[in-house]
Amino acid sequence: MTSQRILIVGGVAGGMSAATRLRRLLEDAEIVVFERGGHVSFANCGLPYYLGGVIDDRSSLLLQTPASLRSRFELDVRVRHEVVAIDRDARTVRVRDLEAGTESDERYDALILSPGANPVRPEIPGADRMLTLRDIDDVDTAMAALTRAPRTALVLGGGFIGLEMTENLLHRGIAVTLVERNPQVLTPLDPEMAEPVAARLRAAGVDLRLGAEVVALGADTATLADGDTIAADLVLAAIGVRPETTLAAQAGLALGPRGGIRVDDQLRTSDPAIYAIGDAVEKVDALSGDQRLVPLAGLANRHGRLVADVIAGTPVIVRDALGTAVVGVLGLTIAVTGWNEKQLRAAGREIRVIHTHPASHTGYYPGAQPMALKLLVDARTDEILGAQAVGGDGVDKRIDVIATAMTGRLTASDLADLELGYAPQYSSAKDPVNMLGYVAHNARAGLTPSIQWHELAAELAAGATLIDVRTPGEYRGGAIPGSLNIPLDDLRERIGEIPAGRLIVHCKVGQRGHTAVRLLTQLGREAVNLDGGYLTWSAGSAAATRLVAA
Amino acid sequence: MTSQRILIVGGVAGGMSAATRLRRLLEDAEIVVFERGGHVSFANCGLPYYLGGVIDDRSSLLLQTPASLRSRFELDVRVRHEVVAIDRDARTVRVRDLEAGTESDERYDALILSPGANPVRPEIPGADRMLTLRDIDDVDTAMAALTRAPRTALVLGGGFIGLEMTENLLHRGIAVTLVERNPQVLTPLDPEMAEPVAARLRAAGVDLRLGAEVVALGADTATLADGDTIAADLVLAAIGVRPETTLAAQAGLALGPRGGIRVDDQLRTSDPAIYAIGDAVEKVDALSGDQRLVPLAGLANRHGRLVADVIAGTPVIVRDALGTAVVGVLGLTIAVTGWNEKQLRAAGREIRVIHTHPASHTGYYPGAQPMALKLLVDARTDEILGAQAVGGDGVDKRIDVIATAMTGRLTASDLADLELGYAPQYSSAKDPVNMLGYVAHNARAGLTPSIQWHELAAELAAGATLIDVRTPGEYRGGAIPGSLNIPLDDLRERIGEIPAGRLIVHCKVGQRGHTAVRLLTQLGREAVNLDGGYLTWSAGSAAATRLVAA
Ligand SMILES: Cc1cc2nc3c(=O)[nH]c(=O)nc-3n(C[C@H](O)[C@H](O)[C@H](O)COP(=O)(O)OP(=O)(O)OC[C@H]3O[C@@H](n4cnc5c(N)ncnc54)[C@H](O)[C@@H]3O)c2cc1C
Ligand SMILES: Cc1cc2nc3c(=O)[nH]c(=O)nc-3n(C[C@H](O)[C@H](O)[C@H](O)COP(=O)(O)OP(=O)(O)OC[C@H]3O[C@@H](n4cnc5c(N)ncnc54)[C@H](O)[C@@H]3O)c2cc1C
Ligand SMILES: CC(C)(COP(=O)(O)OP(=O)(O)OC[C@H]1O[C@@H](n2cnc3c(N)ncnc32)[C@H](O)[C@@H]1OP(=O)(O)O)[C@@H](O)C(=O)NCCC(=O)NCCS
Ligand SMILES: CC(C)(COP(=O)(O)OP(=O)(O)OC[C@H]1O[C@@H](n2cnc3c(N)ncnc32)[C@H](O)[C@@H]1OP(=O)(O)O)[C@@H](O)C(=O)NCCC(=O)NCCS
Repeated sequence: MTSQRILIVGGVAGGMSAATRLRRLLEDAEIVVFERGGHVSFANCGLPYYLGGVIDDRSSLLLQTPASLRSRFELDVRVRHEVVAIDRDARTVRVRDLEAGTESDERYDALILSPGANPVRPEIPGADRMLTLRDIDDVDTAMAALTRAPRTALVLGGGFIGLEMTENLLHRGIAVTLVERNPQVLTPLDPEMAEPVAARLRAAGVDLRLGAEVVALGADTATLADGDTIAADLVLAAIGVRPETTLAAQAGLALGPRGGIRVDDQLRTSDPAIYAIGDAVEKVDALSGDQRLVPLAGLANRHGRLVADVIAGTPVIVRDALGTAVVGVLGLTIAVTGWNEKQLRAAGREIRVIHTHPASHTGYYPGAQPMALKLLVDARTDEILGAQAVGGDGVDKRIDVIATAMTGRLTASDLADLELGYAPQYSSAKDPVNMLGYVAHNARAGLTPSIQWHELAAELAAGATLIDVRTPGEYRGGAIPGSLNIPLDDLRERIGEIPAGRLIVHCKVGQRGHTAVRLLTQLGREAVNLDGGYLTWSAGSAAATRLVAA
Repeated sequence: MTSQRILIVGGVAGGMSAATRLRRLLEDAEIVVFERGGHVSFANCGLPYYLGGVIDDRSSLLLQTPASLRSRFELDVRVRHEVVAIDRDARTVRVRDLEAGTESDERYDALILSPGANPVRPEIPGADRMLTLRDIDDVDTAMAALTRAPRTALVLGGGFIGLEMTENLLHRGIAVTLVERNPQVLTPLDPEMAEPVAARLRAAGVDLRLGAEVVALGADTATLADGDTIAADLVLAAIGVRPETTLAAQAGLALGPRGGIRVDDQLRTSDPAIYAIGDAVEKVDALSGDQRLVPLAGLANRHGRLVADVIAGTPVIVRDALGTAVVGVLGLTIAVTGWNEKQLRAAGREIRVIHTHPASHTGYYPGAQPMALKLLVDARTDEILGAQAVGGDGVDKRIDVIATAMTGRLTASDLADLELGYAPQYSSAKDPVNMLGYVAHNARAGLTPSIQWHELAAELAAGATLIDVRTPGEYRGGAIPGSLNIPLDDLRERIGEIPAGRLIVHCKVGQRGHTAVRLLTQLGREAVNLDGGYLTWSAGSAAATRLVAA
């Protein structure tokens, strides 16, 4: 195992994590990192915030330099060096020194590919002035564009990075039009969960165009498919990334169905001397076992460490991926893990869906912030299949807890039993995650069946009666058409007013609806709860209107 | 199961949770709640903050009233009614109407005891003017005392509630002396973890007396065991609670070894018609299987719901208790779960201990706050035995994640694999919890053995050499006596300067120490890392000094 020569392609999240760990395991190995860009170990994830001036020190994005990596880890880090070909038989790579313009061959015992991914660029007229953000050069270019004092910007793509770009351009005082092809922002969310994000963007003055497409760019305008022309001094795109597989494909390494490099559970490619990690690589989905792409820094870093262990002969387990992610936009935090309802329904899974609207902490302690939580549960096994959260404080905490529960194979009902820290400024005696467990348990036990917002219309068409158990004041403030208002506290005495047949009950969030369903059921009525109540229905209906319009 | 008569003693966290859930399960049952105080369903946990004026609306502490519970849940809630005896053979309780002064017998099919716990009051001269906080009457009394404009206050007890009292009295502009019998505050923490809390209290002007005892109270003074007299216009005590078992004991129900009511895994007392929950009851410890007291609202609420399910015939599982808790003090958040090092060592457990000092989120995004994390691990099985955290943002999140991992039976090394949401303002690509997993994995794999701060002196006495791998600047700012400073980045070239024999390596937090140990080990040296680095050693040493002084 001594004096191995290990070459690494790509010197950022995955590649450099592998390099440093390798050095800690193999002091004798020769470790060379090739990076075609001008920087290594930089904080890709910070780029939008540097653009926005939230991070003002460019050097803080550069976590390590070739010099620091040399002195601490005895790494041979060569920037502006591109690996252009792999000769698998000879176990060499061909490296081009981009500054000198020369090429050379470098021998390896083990080769690690962590070449990342490339931003997708739509092929439309004028696309050459479109900027993307992936590395330091990109952000330098974008910063230079800012010095020309643009007043308007177009952002393509309402995903995580597109929203970060939008927020940061607003922060610079630039008017932003955000164009997203789908009828919602943040496609990892279900539409009713994405709705408050869209509302927040609009409230911040963003001209949000959902279900829209940019077909051409002019000098300072952009044309949409519907013919609209919008002002766009600056154009930034974030419509997804594509695994950088040029090198792997040329070398004949197996690619997977999603277009990424295929690796086994030891991060080996189809060539046992070549390993691959990071955004370029397909992962195994934790729920389906299928191949998927998860272009996230956590996995890139983690797999960087694991691949070093594999090469050093330490046993490793590469876990299947859940895909937990979080993003902050305009004071909202949005976090997801696992699958969403769209995916699960498309896959024909039999699921239970739960929406709640808890506060970040107890209502009696000042500063509690609302959030919307969604849990997806396997209807037969009670397995947790996914979760989504949108709100203020504590959103990231709840999704991290649920992701951990999923990894620990706890069921949805088990969430009720989690012992989470409680004091008034941090949570409630029943934490929102516990509460999801309660609701899941009630659904599983058949105590309170529920329907989803998108199932309501069909239920009403089939003759069910909708009872709104909120107060008359709440009802007057906005109600679902066709509902009958009987406040929960009056239900027992006014039971005679309720028509025969199946009942759909709802309140604001589902909680009083649950108590009402229990009461009605025990009084012999067939009753189900409108999951998530008026809030989820409203968000879903707003999203659906747009879906139809689009 | 219909028309049962269910009586409940105690109408707050446990009792009222049982009552409302019972109603949702048994619409026909007669449910009567007896509460000897004047209020039910109040927020005990908010009392210190109401005292401090952080919560200014008293009514916000009253989550429900007898009237609201009647109209929504058809509950018969009788305040100022004390249950004074149980006749188990007759299945009746004797109830005293505290206002009318009358008594009556009430029949039950099932009886639930949730009588809570009583603040411990030291029996010292003058103790009658000492105030405690448990219910609304208590806080009304304390608020009345505040109208007499006290300038000085004495708080007895540096536990969770004592610290909340202290903060809130400071918030009122009152000078506070905090007296704690132990040599540290917050005994659920280990001493080095409690040290920053003590420092924060002192920095806020609290006269903190550790290892001290109050022996007598004067009219506006207090005398300590060491003879000191301190000004104390107001005296508040929070030195623990004792399970309220008067009724249970009188009725001959079995009590457990910790002085609480004994229940089985269905929350039944030794009389199968009588159930008990909440602070009055002993729980089973999740790690040892032993009986323990866990006077926390989460479990009281949870067991309230479970006991209702038991009575309604729904199958339940009562999980053993971890005892996760969190408290906020003067801008610090402190959270714990499971066992601490003191307990584990006392129990003779073979453990691995890990201290880290991560930031709440990436360093390059503004506003990151430091925290100290501690993980306790079974040295043979890698089982997580406990965790502690002290710091700013995100402390509660990390402990909740670890508590969830413990419930899901993940090992310490498994923490490395958790997929936690990462964006620069929420975490790091390697979340602090992942990083604990990395360190745990290195310890388990024998890659980087470590010693604890309290083991250093013995190591040095036995002849080991201490190498400080921080920069000369850091070294000059404060160093461990007897250490040799060779910065990590110079280690390879200055290896010749290092004396023969066993080496203890340290940096500021343990991270560079780890890389140094790996390097030295591979160069053939016997080296171990000082866990937690200079920061943990400093905190531990400060705590130990006090321990010796006390
Ligand atoms: C703007 C932005 C924001 C992001 N925010 C988040 C976030 O908040 N949370 C999160 O989890 N993830 C985030 N990510 C994703 C995260 O940065 C990536 O998942 C991670 O960097 C992937 O690591 P990697 O090693 O696979 O690729 P990279 O970090 O991209 O590194 C690949 C490197 O390989 C080099 N390279 C490619 N081919 C060659 C070659 N042939 N020769 C030499 N060098 C080559 C490239 O120049 C590149 O520098 C963000 C990404 C971007 C761009
Ligand atoms: C100041 C303070 C702060 C706290 N902060 C937190 C916190 O931040 N986090 C946390 O998890 N926990 C906290 N707790 C603890 C939490 O409040 C308790 O764990 C919880 O209330 C226990 O519920 P219980 O039903 O067992 O008892 P309680 O809520 O105390 O209710 C018991 C009730 O029974 C009544 N009773 C007793 N005997 C009789 C009788 N014979 N007849 C009629 N009535 C009777 C009592 O009057 C009392 O109202 C705090 C407690 C206090 C006092
Ligand atoms: C930073 C980088 C060079 C990796 O360096 P690294 O030394 O491996 O990683 P870190 O600085 O995070 O330190 C982690 C190591 O310290 C150890 N460690 C951390 N805290 C410790 C402590 N208190 N005590 C002991 N060890 C500790 C960990 O166990 C780990 O070592 P291991 O891998 O041998 O187990 C690489 O991840 C990188 O280039 N990152 C920037 C790019 C990036 O991640 N972009 C995407 C996100 S913006
Ligand atoms: C509030 C109190 C009366 C209990 O009332 P409750 O109705 O049982 O409890 P909550 O108001 O918390 O609501 C929980 C119920 O709503 C359900 N629920 C919550 N959100 C829901 C949603 N969105 N959809 C459907 N159901 C929902 C839960 O499943 C649970 O019902 P279940 O027990 O039948 O499963 C009792 O806990 C109490 O008196 N608390 C105050 C004292 C206290 O806790 N002190 C210590 C902390 S300060």
